[in-house]
Amino acid sequence: MQAHLFGRLTPALAARRRLLEAVRPIERTEEIAVERAAGRVAAETVRAPAAVPGFARADWDGYAIRSADVRSARADRPVALRVVGEVFAESRFRGRLRPGEAVAIATGGALPRGSDSVVIFEESERSGATVRMYAPARPGDRVAAVGSDIARGETLVRPGTLLGPALLGAIAATGRGSVRAFARPIVTVLPNGTELRSPGARLRAGEIYESNNASLVAAIAACGAEPRPLAPVPDDPRALERALRAALAASDLVVATGGSSVGERDHLPRLFPKIGRLLFHGIAVRPGKPTLAATAGRKVLLGLPGHPSSCLLNMFWLGAPALRRLARQPGPGWTSRRARVVRAIPPPGQGLARVVPLRRLGDRVWPTWRGSAAITSLTAATAFALLPAGAPGIRAGGTLTVFALEPGLAASPNV
Amino acid sequence: MQAHLFGRLTPALAARRRLLEAVRPIERTEEIAVERAAGRVAAETVRAPAAVPGFARADWDGYAIRSADVRSARADRPVALRVVGEVFAESRFRGRLRPGEAVAIATGGALPRGSDSVVIFEESERSGATVRMYAPARPGDRVAAVGSDIARGETLVRPGTLLGPALLGAIAATGRGSVRAFARPIVTVLPNGTELRSPGARLRAGEIYESNNASLVAAIAACGAEPRPLAPVPDDPRALERALRAALAASDLVVATGGSSVGERDHLPRLFPKIGRLLFHGIAVRPGKPTLAATAGRKVLLGLPGHPSSCLLNMFWLGAPALRRLARQPGPGWTSRRARVVRAIPPPGQGLARVVPLRRLGDRVWPTWRGSAAITSLTAATAFALLPAGAPGIRAGGTLTVFALEPGLAASPNV
Repeated sequence: MQAHLFGRLTPALAARRRLLEAVRPIERTEEIAVERAAGRVAAETVRAPAAVPGFARADWDGYAIRSADVRSARADRPVALRVVGEVFAESRFRGRLRPGEAVAIATGGALPRGSDSVVIFEESERSGATVRMYAPARPGDRVAAVGSDIARGETLVRPGTLLGPALLGAIAATGRGSVRAFARPIVTVLPNGTELRSPGARLRAGEIYESNNASLVAAIAACGAEPRPLAPVPDDPRALERALRAALAASDLVVATGGSSVGERDHLPRLFPKIGRLLFHGIAVRPGKPTLAATAGRKVLLGLPGHPSSCLLNMFWLGAPALRRLARQPGPGWTSRRARVVRAIPPPGQGLARVVPLRRLGDRVWPTWRGSAAITSLTAATAFALLPAGAPGIRAGGTLTVFALEPGLAASPNV
Repeated sequence: MQAHLFGRLTPALAARRRLLEAVRPIERTEEIAVERAAGRVAAETVRAPAAVPGFARADWDGYAIRSADVRSARADRPVALRVVGEVFAESRFRGRLRPGEAVAIATGGALPRGSDSVVIFEESERSGATVRMYAPARPGDRVAAVGSDIARGETLVRPGTLLGPALLGAIAATGRGSVRAFARPIVTVLPNGTELRSPGARLRAGEIYESNNASLVAAIAACGAEPRPLAPVPDDPRALERALRAALAASDLVVATGGSSVGERDHLPRLFPKIGRLLFHGIAVRPGKPTLAATAGRKVLLGLPGHPSSCLLNMFWLGAPALRRLARQPGPGWTSRRARVVRAIPPPGQGLARVVPLRRLGDRVWPTWRGSAAITSLTAATAFALLPAGAPGIRAGGTLTVFALEPGLAASPNV
């Protein structure tokens, strides 16, 4: 065993920028039913094939009338009209409304020809075939005109638009049953380490359970990608190279964990430049220094430390923005805000930036760090801060910019 | 057609409270692999079956030593030790370290008996079988002690805990390959209206496309439930009753849309009390007044207006908290904050509270309302406000409390 030291460490933000520049947003698309497209990103311009509404409709239950007939109507001087028919939502009044006539109409019903407005039940009084109107109406009152919601040909969605509940409803309202969306990129997780066993297996001496799959899979899904966890691969360079190449062929991006440092058994730093072009190895950040990335054709390889907290914390500040760019999801996976620290944060020291996991409650935060090997450093974290190398510590009561994690990344909802 | 007027309207917050009290959190559970459990809610107390780490491990690459040997080591006065072996992550040093000895050790390696700390490569210099230590060490330095991350028997998760990336990693680290979680409640959407056609079908005169399925399905999924959209059912009381009863039998909660008002063709207000016990019909809120709810045994029926924006907006302020309680998801689906309105919001008027959809950018918001029939009222909304009946309007520049929607409910990410 030899001491292979890191070369020049890449500053944290430079590493992130290099990784982001290397990631190409997914180009594969698929046609998806509107009822299954929530959270997807549109890959087409959706123009309304038809106006919504497609015909003038009553916006309320009441009587379709000619507004000219009731211009003088008042509570103390009602105008009487003759009820000549009724229109339910799906039916039509066949004739044409003449002066002095009214048609009972249900919300959504097609406005009879000749009528121009609707008077609601509450402002009228029915007695047999006669209805008294107690209030005036203006043309268009309580009527949804053709195209008043969505004009025919109107652009509803552009490529890159996130499809949420309201937009999917709008697409359905124009009659589209499906939408072309970008595929969820496939992100394979490849843990490596001869000492690793999958949870549920029986450990032998010196072995530990592989846990990065479980945490990364959850984080990858929260970034809009489709995670594919693999069983751990031993520290054998040939087996590892085969596994990496196979994972690359079947994925849009590969996240390998463990074997990312400078020891003799750390094979990723030799394999990444063999398979692709190294972007960086070693980030000037703590925890998370033993991290590397490479491009392989149009795809990206990311190597994260095996230590559970270093691994997941790197996924938060470094991996998530890259995966969200790959998946064309908006935002990096967090929102920034100012917060006040309840417990002091020590200075990061010279040379290395420090990523500090935090629990946030409103505008107060406190560090949750218990060491990079301890997954419990993050089991309460809902936010993090990134202190530059050489920055001063933050005393209790001091403020700093924190990044509040999105629900799928945070340990519990940000409140 | 007759004017069946609403009886006494239920105030908005009272309606919500009644609905929330009627919803029973899901009790069905299932065993789920940790790699598929993201976003689920734990249904068991998870105690660590084993300590993590299960043996004292090196936290860094370096040399396992006896700290007593290097007590006097300094940069200018190194202490020489004899390297007697090496330990990779999965291997063990069989013997016992004696005074004056060191064992090369990789991160994660089991600390040899007799050693109590690790000196990193950067603070040492190897020459054949000799290694010079340039810095002292204290017992425990760079060592992860047994149980230092998770103690054996420690409670990791309690019933009701949301399973995010870090907790799932912690569960996996203790060797658990699966976890008992609450099932995602099944929520069926049942649109009713003879005029409704599913998107993709061809419209006949007076017909429109059913679009509430598309928006509600997305909102229901964002609340942690499993949506089941049904094809529209015509305004036939017998067909509708059959469909409601069948949906109830197969679901944990049913959301019917349309037919919720007081017209002759509005069958829900007669069917809900027949199938179960009515909680309310008619909410003193605009939009969204024609809304009703009932309990049927341990299940809940919710009837929302057919107007797309009224329907989805009611889902935001009224339905989401109920669905999230059903799914045992934390929080109502939004977080509250103060914001400044860029464009004035008119007063809600007497008698009816007003729900105002908003677009939010930082601490500024503006209304997006275009009418309750217009789904485009919500296609830009990322937040909403609830103004009580009789409240004053908000002038441009004034502040109010707004509810920022979670990513899955909002039209685009809240920023």
